[in-house]
Amino acid sequence: MTYEQHCGTCLAAEIGEGGLTDETLARTLGAAAPSLTRLGAAWRAQDLAQLPVPRGGQDLAACLPVAEAYRESFDEVLVLGMGGSSLGGQTLATLSDPRRSSGPRLRFLANVDPHSFETLIEGSDLARLGLIVISKSGGTAETMAQFLVLLQRLREAQGDTDLARRITVISDPGDNPLRRIAARFGLPCLDHEAAVGGRFSVLTNVGLLPTMIAGLDATAVRAGAEEALGRSLSAAQPADSPAALGAAISVGLLNERHISQSVLMPYADRLATLSQWYRQLWAESLGKDGTGTTPIDALGTVDQHSQLQLYLAGPRDKMFTLVRLATEGEGAAVDPALVAESPLAYLGGRRLGDLMAAMARATADTLANNGRPVRVFALERLDEAVLGGLFAHFMLETLIAADLLGVDPFGQPAVEEGKVLARRYLGEPAP
Amino acid sequence: MTYEQHCGTCLAAEIGEGGLTDETLARTLGAAAPSLTRLGAAWRAQDLAQLPVPRGGQDLAACLPVAEAYRESFDEVLVLGMGGSSLGGQTLATLSDPRRSSGPRLRFLANVDPHSFETLIEGSDLARLGLIVISKSGGTAETMAQFLVLLQRLREAQGDTDLARRITVISDPGDNPLRRIAARFGLPCLDHEAAVGGRFSVLTNVGLLPTMIAGLDATAVRAGAEEALGRSLSAAQPADSPAALGAAISVGLLNERHISQSVLMPYADRLATLSQWYRQLWAESLGKDGTGTTPIDALGTVDQHSQLQLYLAGPRDKMFTLVRLATEGEGAAVDPALVAESPLAYLGGRRLGDLMAAMARATADTLANNGRPVRVFALERLDEAVLGGLFAHFMLETLIAADLLGVDPFGQPAVEEGKVLARRYLGEPAP
Repeated sequence: MTYEQHCGTCLAAEIGEGGLTDETLARTLGAAAPSLTRLGAAWRAQDLAQLPVPRGGQDLAACLPVAEAYRESFDEVLVLGMGGSSLGGQTLATLSDPRRSSGPRLRFLANVDPHSFETLIEGSDLARLGLIVISKSGGTAETMAQFLVLLQRLREAQGDTDLARRITVISDPGDNPLRRIAARFGLPCLDHEAAVGGRFSVLTNVGLLPTMIAGLDATAVRAGAEEALGRSLSAAQPADSPAALGAAISVGLLNERHISQSVLMPYADRLATLSQWYRQLWAESLGKDGTGTTPIDALGTVDQHSQLQLYLAGPRDKMFTLVRLATEGEGAAVDPALVAESPLAYLGGRRLGDLMAAMARATADTLANNGRPVRVFALERLDEAVLGGLFAHFMLETLIAADLLGVDPFGQPAVEEGKVLARRYLGEPAP
Repeated sequence: MTYEQHCGTCLAAEIGEGGLTDETLARTLGAAAPSLTRLGAAWRAQDLAQLPVPRGGQDLAACLPVAEAYRESFDEVLVLGMGGSSLGGQTLATLSDPRRSSGPRLRFLANVDPHSFETLIEGSDLARLGLIVISKSGGTAETMAQFLVLLQRLREAQGDTDLARRITVISDPGDNPLRRIAARFGLPCLDHEAAVGGRFSVLTNVGLLPTMIAGLDATAVRAGAEEALGRSLSAAQPADSPAALGAAISVGLLNERHISQSVLMPYADRLATLSQWYRQLWAESLGKDGTGTTPIDALGTVDQHSQLQLYLAGPRDKMFTLVRLATEGEGAAVDPALVAESPLAYLGGRRLGDLMAAMARATADTLANNGRPVRVFALERLDEAVLGGLFAHFMLETLIAADLLGVDPFGQPAVEEGKVLARRYLGEPAP
C-alpha cells in the first residue's frame, strides 16, 4: 500500500483557500504528538489494549478447528451480528473469489427485515447450514432475535443433539443472555476480547473467524495491520506518521475550513464494504459532544454519475479519500474495430481496468483542480495484508482524531435511549 | 402511503432550537407558491416535460413485446447503465420476489471494476443471456465499454445473426455512438425521452422496461406517481402540498439552522436502493453554485449500530427522513420459552417485523427528543404504486427545492472536466 500525496492536495498551497494552511497543519500535527507518543509506547509494550492485534496467535489457534469443521461440513455459513460484529468480517470476506473458493458460501445477516430473513432462510438448506453468532454484550436485540428464531428452526428440523456442531458463539466472557442460551444447549463459545469495542474488533476473532471460514489467511491480515501500526507508531515525528497526518488533516480542515464531511471513495467494488466499516468507526468514535465529522461512503466510478456534481460544485464542506487499485491492463479490452472513427475511439484497445484507473486519477485531479481537499491511497493489489493495513491505519487515525477533538473514542452512549424506547414499544414493562 | 407528521417534528415548537421556526416555515412555503403554481399548471396541461409520467401508455406498449420476449427467452437479463440509467430500475426490481418470480434473473451492471465484470460474466450462460443497454447520450464511457466487450463476446460465442434478439438499446433519438453500433448490428432501439435527464427518468421506459422484465406492473408504478403528483400539485396552498412542504422544510432548515445534510433512512432492505436513487436525484439536481445539501443514505435498523451515535450526539447539521413499513406481525416469532426469566424476555412471542417496527418508531422519537428534525413516511405496504408515489414525491420536492435555492435542477455541468481528463489519461489525442 502506498499512502500517496500525504497532504499535498489537501493544502492551501496546492488547492487554494479550500485547503489547509501550513500553519494549521503544523499546529495540529504538534497537538497530535502526545497521542502518538502514548499510543506508540503502548504498542511497543504490546499493550495497545483497545486496538489489539493479538500476538502469538493463540486466539486464532482456537478459531482454526471451528473454521476447518465449518468448511468441511457446511454449504452455507450465516454470520449473525450487527455493526462491528459484522462489517469487518464482511469486508474481509469480499476477498474470497466465488469462482475459486471451495468452501461454504458465507453470508452476513444483520438487519431484522422479516422479508429478507424469510427469503434468505427459504433459500437455505438447514441441514447444510452453520451459524456464527456474534454479540459482544450478548444482548443485541436484532442478533438475538435472529438467533433465537434460527435456533428454534434448527431444533425443529434436526433436534437438539446436533446444535453444538453447527452453532458457534462469540461473546464477552462472563454471564450474559447469549452465553446462557449457549450453556443451555452446549454451544461452543469463543471469547470476545473484553477490552475491545465492536468497531475496533476486526483484527480479533470477530473479524478473523469468518475470514478463516472463507478460506483466507487471517495471519496475513494481522501482519499487514502490524506493519501499518509500525509505520505510523515508529515515526520520528507526527508528519512522518500516516495516521497522525490523516488525523491532523481531518481535524485541521474541520477547524480551519469547517469541512464537516469525510468522503471515502474506493475504486473497487470489493472495497464498498470497507467504506461501511469505516463509516461506523469514524461516526461512532467521534460523533460526540456536538463534534465529529460525518463519514460518507461513495464508490468509484459509480458515484461520479451520482455525487460528483455535488462534490465539485456544492458547498465546500467535504474532504475526500480516494482508494485506487492498480487495475491497469486488467479485464477485457474493447475491440478497436468497433469504435474506429467514432467519438469512442479513445476506448479502442483499452481494458476495463484501464478505464477504472483513468477515472480514479481524473477524479482525484478534478477534485483538486476545483479546490477540494483530496488524498489518495494507492493499492498495488488487494489482499489480506493490504486490508489489514487499511484497517489498522483507519483505527489509529480515528484514535488520534479523537484526541485532537477531545472526545472519548470508545463507547456509544447516545444510542441507549433508543434501545430503551424500542423495548418499551415492544411491550416491556416499564422499569 | 401516509406522509406522517408533515412537519411536526421538524419545528422548533416541537423539538426546540434545532428545528424550524413557524415564521421561517411560513415564509419559505410562501416562496414555494410560484413553483407550485407553475408545476401544477404544467401538470394539468400534461406538459410537465422534465418530470413526465407519460400518459396513454404508448411507450409501455412498445416495451411490452421486448419484456415478453426477454421473459420467455432468457435465464438472465443484464441491464447496463450508470446512475439514472440504472438506479430507478434497480429500485423497482427489488419488488420482485426471487421465491415467486418465474422470469429471468435481472442484474444491473454499472461499475467497470474488471474483477466484478469477470466474476459476473463467468457465472453467466451467454446463450441464455439478454442485454438492455441504457445510455441517454449514447456515449457513457463505462456503459459503452461494458457493452462493447459483451457485444464482442456474444459475437464470438453466437455469431452476429442472433444479436438483434438478445440486445435492446434505450438512447436519445438521433445520432450518437450507441445508436451507430445498434444500426450496424440491427439492434432494436427504444427512444429515451429526449427532454428527460437520467435522474428523472424512472417513470419512463428507462425504469419501466426493467420493471416489466421483472414481471412487475409498470402501469401501477405510474398510477402511484400520478396520485402523488396530484396530491402535491392540486393542493389549495403550499402547506397542503407534501412536496412543497418537504422542500420548504429542507431549505428552511438549511437557511435558518445551517442543516446541510439530509439523511434518508428506510426501515426495509428493499428500500436501500431507493436511497441510492434519491441520493443521486438530490445531489446532482441541487449541488450547484456552492449550494445544495448533501443526501446521505442510511438503513434501519443496521445504521442504528453505526451512525445513530453521530446523528444524536454529533453536530446539529442533519435532518432525517425515516421510511417505515407496517411490518408488525410479520416474520418469525421468538419462542417465549427460550427467553423466560432473561433480560431478553421482552422478545418473547415477538416477531422480527415487530422488532423492526418498534426500532423505527423508537429511532424517530429519539431523534426528536434530542432536538433533531425528523419526518416519517409511513408505508402500509411496499408495491409498485407505493414506489411510484415515492419517486414522484421526491422528484417534485427536488424541483421545488431547486427553485427555493435558485439553482437549475437539470444538467450536471461540473462533471464534464473529469470526463475530459479521463479520456486524456486513456490516451485520447488532445483536442
